[in-house]
Amino acid sequence: MSGAPVGLTEVAALVDRRLCALFDEQRAIWRPNDARLVEAIDELERIANGGKRLRAAFAFWGWYGAGQMDGAPVADVASDRILDVCAAFELLQAFALIHDDVMDDADTRRNERTIHAAQAELVRSRGWRGEPRRYGEGVAILIGDLSHVYADQLIGNDSDQARRIWDQLRIELNLGQYLDMRTAAASELDRVTAQRVATFKSALYTIVRPLQLGACLGGVQSDDVMARLEEYGRPAGQAFQLRDDLLGVFGDADTVGKPVGNDLREGKPTELVAAALERADSAQHRVLGRIGEPNLSDDEVHGILAVLHETGAVVDVERRIDALVVRATQAAFELPFPLSVQETLAALARYVAARQH
Amino acid sequence: MSGAPVGLTEVAALVDRRLCALFDEQRAIWRPNDARLVEAIDELERIANGGKRLRAAFAFWGWYGAGQMDGAPVADVASDRILDVCAAFELLQAFALIHDDVMDDADTRRNERTIHAAQAELVRSRGWRGEPRRYGEGVAILIGDLSHVYADQLIGNDSDQARRIWDQLRIELNLGQYLDMRTAAASELDRVTAQRVATFKSALYTIVRPLQLGACLGGVQSDDVMARLEEYGRPAGQAFQLRDDLLGVFGDADTVGKPVGNDLREGKPTELVAAALERADSAQHRVLGRIGEPNLSDDEVHGILAVLHETGAVVDVERRIDALVVRATQAAFELPFPLSVQETLAALARYVAARQH
Repeated sequence: MSGAPVGLTEVAALVDRRLCALFDEQRAIWRPNDARLVEAIDELERIANGGKRLRAAFAFWGWYGAGQMDGAPVADVASDRILDVCAAFELLQAFALIHDDVMDDADTRRNERTIHAAQAELVRSRGWRGEPRRYGEGVAILIGDLSHVYADQLIGNDSDQARRIWDQLRIELNLGQYLDMRTAAASELDRVTAQRVATFKSALYTIVRPLQLGACLGGVQSDDVMARLEEYGRPAGQAFQLRDDLLGVFGDADTVGKPVGNDLREGKPTELVAAALERADSAQHRVLGRIGEPNLSDDEVHGILAVLHETGAVVDVERRIDALVVRATQAAFELPFPLSVQETLAALARYVAARQH
Repeated sequence: MSGAPVGLTEVAALVDRRLCALFDEQRAIWRPNDARLVEAIDELERIANGGKRLRAAFAFWGWYGAGQMDGAPVADVASDRILDVCAAFELLQAFALIHDDVMDDADTRRNERTIHAAQAELVRSRGWRGEPRRYGEGVAILIGDLSHVYADQLIGNDSDQARRIWDQLRIELNLGQYLDMRTAAASELDRVTAQRVATFKSALYTIVRPLQLGACLGGVQSDDVMARLEEYGRPAGQAFQLRDDLLGVFGDADTVGKPVGNDLREGKPTELVAAALERADSAQHRVLGRIGEPNLSDDEVHGILAVLHETGAVVDVERRIDALVVRATQAAFELPFPLSVQETLAALARYVAARQH
């Protein structure tokens, strides 16, 4: 099931429009100051376009469910306030991706040149001074920071609880990324670490916190409901991360947008690799021991892929995904939300666990 | 006058204590999750320590003046709320410096190893995998981002006007940095550009916005007072930037913490260089034309320094600084604040315009 559910696409259309308005407004503000500033906003827009808008969708449905709306068309009921918050999540995601691409030295993102790659190219093509890589990375860092500020501005100021959730998720995101990089560099590829990184980066940042923040703006105050949202979001987020782990290793450049074996070269701590390491015999251990070498040959990558299959790690992860989706679905139907919203959330859990890109 | 005025040192002591408490609290929260996360907080603390706390001081005196406090000891009257905001400015500054050091590839900052340099060294000394530069820069980006979030969290949520100022200054900071990098790379070293960058990065970010935000929390709502604060802060900030330009070119590594000629190698757009370019004859133009070459020889640097003197640009900038301090001082004494606060602000303007490091 690679088609995105309407619960996602309908929200995405509204969020895209909101983002477009924001960029236009910012260009109008800054152009009179200095026309060169507009280039920075254009670059941000280029990367912010075309996201799946997952985090926005979870924020939206948290809000919609909390408001006990039941079947009312998305475009009719969506308030400016919730769309601002949905757009904020997507700008925060753009910030994270832009900085991530610098850290990973990725050349493309969603079939667009990444900012640091495009800006480095600009230095070369225009014959500007200085080191192209340094300029490209510097500009990407700044444009990421700018996106972070825009995101923050859209979150607004009218709910202390919403701000607390927002602050919390941003700290979780940054510390989760740090743990990811740190343990990849040190080759600390155990399962506990992998699960911890997945919890920060996928379960909390992508699903639980957007849902809770949306629900909070929809009027939910009870800790019990917040906890139930977490019971849905944690397994859904873990399934999302496990699918991402499989795609990052097996997916090919055409559908996933990154080359096969990419995550193996980066040595990301994933449950997939942890599961293989736990089951590997000594010969298989030697093969897996090459994970994290930036210049793994294609043959070595294929050797590692074979071991991931032979040890049963792939089957193990697929089974875990299925079980997590069942848990998320059950939790969705226990939420104090109308049935149509429960169904939407169940569909979103299935989607994130199964998506092909 | 290199000694910092008490208006600065007294605030700095309180802000340092507040930051220390924040880092301790964050370590206590995150250590149980994963002891490795504490390393990120330790690194942030290492760089956040030892700042001059200029922005905090301006926020503080804006608040103190707005509250019509007159001579009451700083440590007695400082509320938790205003100290949070002062600390927020210093964490935002740490964020900007950490990202700046990545962009400039600076090895040291306030006699400490910069984060990206220290973290790259860690990869080498521990024999971790991957490219040391990439890891160091990645970790520095993340720790800078974390500092940004902590800053934002401390700004709080209780004043819409304060949030608007905060959002505004962060956008100004990022766009100002972008313009700085962009015009340096493209060698667009004219005076208008130099003044524009100085306005964003020094006048607004360092002085005007902290003062206004502090005043806003101290109860000022009138646009007239906000405008008067700007009349003080703009010239004071320009003088600060001009001094910084002189130090960045002539200052030596011992007192300024960066090598002579550093800013010339980076090709920063400064009024100093713009003034020299405006007055240079064709031979001098050729010498100045080398500005922005990363591998300028020491001889070339000294040739450029000579031209900066010979054209009268240095004297011109010193005179501009004097005139700006006079304007800032006059504006300070026109603020609707008690005399003791006017005097403190006048002393701060003299200090930022004259500081030796």
